[in-house]
Amino acid sequence: MTDRILEFLRNRQEDGPCMVLDLDVVRDNYFSFAKALPDTRIFYAVKANPDPQVLSLLAELGSCFDTASVVEIEQVLAAGASADRISFGNTIKKERDIARAYALGVRLFAVDCEAEVEKIARVAPGSKVFCRILCDATGAEWPLSRKFGCAPAMAPRVLEHAHSLGLNAYGLSFHVGSQQRDPRMWDGALKAAAEIFRDLAERGISLQMVNLGGGFPTKYLRNVPAVKAYGQSIFKSLRKHFGNRIPETIIEPGRGMVGNAGIIEAEVVLISKKSDTDQVKWVYLDIGKFNGLAETTDEMIRYPIKTAFDHDAKEPCVLAGPSCDSVDVLYEKDPYLLPVSLEIGAKVLIEGTGAYTTTYSSVGFNGFPPLKSYVI
Amino acid sequence: MTDRILEFLRNRQEDGPCMVLDLDVVRDNYFSFAKALPDTRIFYAVKANPDPQVLSLLAELGSCFDTASVVEIEQVLAAGASADRISFGNTIKKERDIARAYALGVRLFAVDCEAEVEKIARVAPGSKVFCRILCDATGAEWPLSRKFGCAPAMAPRVLEHAHSLGLNAYGLSFHVGSQQRDPRMWDGALKAAAEIFRDLAERGISLQMVNLGGGFPTKYLRNVPAVKAYGQSIFKSLRKHFGNRIPETIIEPGRGMVGNAGIIEAEVVLISKKSDTDQVKWVYLDIGKFNGLAETTDEMIRYPIKTAFDHDAKEPCVLAGPSCDSVDVLYEKDPYLLPVSLEIGAKVLIEGTGAYTTTYSSVGFNGFPPLKSYVI
Repeated sequence: MTDRILEFLRNRQEDGPCMVLDLDVVRDNYFSFAKALPDTRIFYAVKANPDPQVLSLLAELGSCFDTASVVEIEQVLAAGASADRISFGNTIKKERDIARAYALGVRLFAVDCEAEVEKIARVAPGSKVFCRILCDATGAEWPLSRKFGCAPAMAPRVLEHAHSLGLNAYGLSFHVGSQQRDPRMWDGALKAAAEIFRDLAERGISLQMVNLGGGFPTKYLRNVPAVKAYGQSIFKSLRKHFGNRIPETIIEPGRGMVGNAGIIEAEVVLISKKSDTDQVKWVYLDIGKFNGLAETTDEMIRYPIKTAFDHDAKEPCVLAGPSCDSVDVLYEKDPYLLPVSLEIGAKVLIEGTGAYTTTYSSVGFNGFPPLKSYVI
Repeated sequence: MTDRILEFLRNRQEDGPCMVLDLDVVRDNYFSFAKALPDTRIFYAVKANPDPQVLSLLAELGSCFDTASVVEIEQVLAAGASADRISFGNTIKKERDIARAYALGVRLFAVDCEAEVEKIARVAPGSKVFCRILCDATGAEWPLSRKFGCAPAMAPRVLEHAHSLGLNAYGLSFHVGSQQRDPRMWDGALKAAAEIFRDLAERGISLQMVNLGGGFPTKYLRNVPAVKAYGQSIFKSLRKHFGNRIPETIIEPGRGMVGNAGIIEAEVVLISKKSDTDQVKWVYLDIGKFNGLAETTDEMIRYPIKTAFDHDAKEPCVLAGPSCDSVDVLYEKDPYLLPVSLEIGAKVLIEGTGAYTTTYSSVGFNGFPPLKSYVI
């Protein structure tokens, strides 16, 4: 919550929810990462928030970029970053899209299986590839499935295949889960990575890079360790497992770069009870799962919510969105404490919403427009 | 799957997934509903698919429309239906939006609490209101939460309040859950509705209408009863609970009107295994939860998928979308049987995707565009 955002909202006239993002906070976050991990290159995860102004600022500051698609690559190039600062980090790519990325100058690609290596060898010859390995994501609020990565035991074969097809078997990547609150969780993956480095060195292939992924948290309701603690813990693990031969490293912060830079302003549309005996009120906002708050799915991300009534006593409320869809309920299993005096028509501020909000919006489910956003 | 859709897809050149919807199927569905429930007015649930051509066809056929927002009301008016054929069926409305709807001519509104009644009384004087009640949704594949509706015991007070404020206390509504496969599930709600009719009649308020909601299923993998069976079962319950004084009724089919009219064509982007010992393959499509298949959340809707390899033996596969988001997995707990010979680059046809696909698409998560759609 910054003074600049509050001033912007005071002057805003139009109807409907919006997200306001303060670029000063993004700049601060960038420098925090750069300071905490001074020998690590930063690849901003574009998917967290691909706003052109966010990308331009980060391009200016010297950031590199982790992209999920050709459209994101084009957005990064349009923001002024050169192609050698781009990683095509999605392990699932159409061969046509790899060819397009290569034509745009991209030479760094993620893989997690031999079939993907073969596509890259065919249409992006000589490129660098890094193999994503599965790792333990305990402690993450948005834990990752097994969707990306292969078992560590399979990675040497994938990279050896890349090498044999003329690609540059460049390194490894892993991801400890989004909103990872335990800085020690990088240790196990780094141990596995160091073993693969040694294994491939014995076969004459010298890996150079470890992509430490994202997972760096933003503050929602609970406190999270500072970026510095992550830097220290990761460096300690690198020393422990790689000794004096510490590889080149990169990180891919998304949420940690932009999450706390954004605030959503929304409005209370209705407050009601379902029956006379119900203990819990229902509070309906003009924003829900389909126009910005998709990360409340399974009540995983619990955003801090501020109102003008916060000096009052609070009571448990079910919080829901405005659409005619019964799954559009934000917090119900674990009701949200809101002021007893909260009124229909009141504004609420939802903090920590700079990442994974605008682009998750539906094109217009129920006729509600996508979340508006303002970058200041 | 119609010949017209197959022909359209044969001639399609461009890249990326798309949904093709055959208006002839929508027309057939409309007539099936009209025939199965001849004394019931049909209010198409616009949110299922607000395509202008779908709305125009239904307007021509004489359908009425259930809308969730002012934008949907405007879409229906643009399609040629008059405002007296529109219900503002969302129980969660901003007072400003009620006023806008009233200015556009809408005079029929849903409520489920006294606060909503008061908004309508202030800005839409004299309008008809119906009160939504909670009911049992057992048997539905997309069961509804308690988000909409009040306990039946509270409904008389809500409607009496409407009456006292000069509104027309018009009737009741309920919803037995989307994709409801048991035609008998309307019985319990109709019993509760009849009790409320009697209760209010004793207080001098004569309700006239029961909104039977939606819930009419479309065929996915499992067979569903024909619309006729729903018509018979509902009529039997109306007779049983209302005797000779059967009220005016309306239905709100959405999925049942357009679901089976649409097919998505998608492409296999990658097939891989996570380790040498894994029994289950991972198959990645160029469509997932964020660009059209949101209803696979919690694996609730299980779409039939056709490939050119279906004559071959099948094996269990995890099916996932193309985005760099680990929740973008369609079927994993219950893997999907796909042909062993399925290849990267192959096309797949996903049936029953005319409802709740295009509008759930994100504006561009991961840079993937919203699902394209073609109405033929």
